Amino acid sequence: MITDSTQTSSGVCFPRGFQASGLAAGLKASGNLDLALVANNGAHPASAAVFTSNRVVAAPVTYTRELMQASTVTHVILNAGNANACTGRRGMDDVRATVETLAAEAGVDQSQIAVCSTGVIGEYMEIDRLTRAIPALVNNLSEDGANLAARAIMTTDTVAKEIEIEKSGWRIGGMAKGAGMLAPALATMLCVITTDAKVSKDVLAISLKRAVDVSFNRTDTDGCMSTNDTVIVLASGDSGIEADEAEFGAALEVACRDLAGKLRDDAEGASHSIDINVTGASSEAAAVEVARSVSRSNLVKTAIFGNDPNWGRILSQIGTVDPSVAPFDVNDVNVSINGVQICRNGGIGDPKDALDLAASKLVTIDIELGAGDAQATVYTTDLTHDYVHENSAYTS
Amino acid sequence: MITDSTQTSSGVCFPRGFQASGLAAGLKASGNLDLALVANNGAHPASAAVFTSNRVVAAPVTYTRELMQASTVTHVILNAGNANACTGRRGMDDVRATVETLAAEAGVDQSQIAVCSTGVIGEYMEIDRLTRAIPALVNNLSEDGANLAARAIMTTDTVAKEIEIEKSGWRIGGMAKGAGMLAPALATMLCVITTDAKVSKDVLAISLKRAVDVSFNRTDTDGCMSTNDTVIVLASGDSGIEADEAEFGAALEVACRDLAGKLRDDAEGASHSIDINVTGASSEAAAVEVARSVSRSNLVKTAIFGNDPNWGRILSQIGTVDPSVAPFDVNDVNVSINGVQICRNGGIGDPKDALDLAASKLVTIDIELGAGDAQATVYTTDLTHDYVHENSAYTS
Repeated sequence: MITDSTQTSSGVCFPRGFQASGLAAGLKASGNLDLALVANNGAHPASAAVFTSNRVVAAPVTYTRELMQASTVTHVILNAGNANACTGRRGMDDVRATVETLAAEAGVDQSQIAVCSTGVIGEYMEIDRLTRAIPALVNNLSEDGANLAARAIMTTDTVAKEIEIEKSGWRIGGMAKGAGMLAPALATMLCVITTDAKVSKDVLAISLKRAVDVSFNRTDTDGCMSTNDTVIVLASGDSGIEADEAEFGAALEVACRDLAGKLRDDAEGASHSIDINVTGASSEAAAVEVARSVSRSNLVKTAIFGNDPNWGRILSQIGTVDPSVAPFDVNDVNVSINGVQICRNGGIGDPKDALDLAASKLVTIDIELGAGDAQATVYTTDLTHDYVHENSAYTS
Repeated sequence: MITDSTQTSSGVCFPRGFQASGLAAGLKASGNLDLALVANNGAHPASAAVFTSNRVVAAPVTYTRELMQASTVTHVILNAGNANACTGRRGMDDVRATVETLAAEAGVDQSQIAVCSTGVIGEYMEIDRLTRAIPALVNNLSEDGANLAARAIMTTDTVAKEIEIEKSGWRIGGMAKGAGMLAPALATMLCVITTDAKVSKDVLAISLKRAVDVSFNRTDTDGCMSTNDTVIVLASGDSGIEADEAEFGAALEVACRDLAGKLRDDAEGASHSIDINVTGASSEAAAVEVARSVSRSNLVKTAIFGNDPNWGRILSQIGTVDPSVAPFDVNDVNVSINGVQICRNGGIGDPKDALDLAASKLVTIDIELGAGDAQATVYTTDLTHDYVHENSAYTS
């Protein structure tokens, strides 16, 4: 966290012009916080968002994705406990009821309201509980409410995830939950990022897409794509400062990388975080494809769980990548794990005796393809008994 | 098994004209059988094979794949305990030493000898142990040796896999190990199929490709593609009967489906076998893509392990399939598990209370896409604690 000494508010309320709230509406069986609201009261509001690329999307994604093409969103209401996915017409009716109630209570136009949901797929919302809680949710809006909001969107998360960044006169804040590809059991990853920089809608949208591409979209812990993934950025303009486009884009990328890293490090059941760096690729797309392929290998992931630097499984996995996407010669490939080059020129390299993976929470796999200058990193975790337990022992 | 009463030999020795042997050469740390030989003594030999499509392939695959383009193979030597993969020039030298020794001992041309290996990746063969055992391996060749050979190629397999089929005057036999995508930890799946039908090399090759496409290539238990997968078919012609091409193709498909089913049902750590039937697809390729996608979802596989008929995870997974490959409207999709239609028109269907997955070793998932007439089935297993244990607790 990089903040100045006058900071009083955290997370999404760190930039000027934002309020948040969170409460327990009774959507989670546990009785924990499960409903959150972020409000942008700024004089120059702008908004942008990216959504899951899954063809099966939850009702709130269908609704909000269409809304945000034309509207400027100032209010984001988020619930945990139910993803409102695969719920048909009734699911969409529940989204509309949420928007209508919040618009009336908050005194804003319906077109200003985005909706995000996370939780179990394929069950109807207890919508009356949600709408009954909206008056209190609006009443509780405050510049101190960010952490309550961040906690209210947690599902299998063990910690709330927030970020604050101070730049030259303007700020970025944010919160995220889950999940990503990490815990789509309880669908999904949700993220709200705020800024008081004066930023146009177009710059917001372009910067967000790039930042998400290299952060959330490269976090892939179990290869499963959620029905509800949503990242929304809201700008208030209340710093009064027009951010330099490049500086803003870089700061937004830092925020997204930080939050994506927090999601990865809190992934269900993981005992190791794994960074997969691919260098020497013919293109960035090739590097991503190779890294993602390794990140999805259950054999690589179980080997790391067993603290076994099994480079044969890594090499076998990268051999499955389509050559038209990622051309390389296997005899040029080098693989290092935590700095030890255990595979050289596609064959046996240095002894792995020096490696003690049990002592490293973070395992870094460096794959040099020898086919160009492009590189990419994908962030994943190991595959553990706890992962199997969490995703098999509970109906979700 | 469909046999006549005069049968005396099993597996690869069930058709006339074949001998086999298996012994312990000391390649497995356990001291178990680890070296096998199948010999075709027929008057009209023909051969065909298919191999892994992985770009990273073991030395014996590189060698045998090139050999079989021009040569008729009569002898297949197979070892377990070491995959001879990622072993560079030395790995290829070890293959050549194997071929030279066997050719001299058996009195056959080097061009008649195929080599298959399975076991750990990225370690050099103990080639002296292997070549020293070849004289005994040749001496032991017998029509009763099939089961010894089938046992010698086992790695994490718990049972030997053999098949015998009797048709109108001719026979098919076979053995397989592993693995498939099932246990690439100890790389690989290997399969040798024999027949005494008179079949041309072209018919053998075409029939084998089709049979493998709908059997081994649709068995996908952990999405990992091996460096060593090899399926070889040898014809002796010793029945004296020219098999009808369609009848032979159908029988070969039965043999491959049977052996693939045995691999799947013996998959590492699995507690459920899962058949994923996709119907109503726009093309067979679309059906395979949707089924394969579901077969690779750790969330679906852990849910089935937990006896949870979690259709939301299935629907979320099929939503990730590229629409250009598999067009369908989510609102037309129905999903049944063990005959109960728990998802109708992309939404909530019949209650799942009637389903007791704990009582079913086989779980059948039927997915109707409503987008055409094509169908396909992919065979997989659940993801269990035992899978994580087997693939993390042992270095391999």
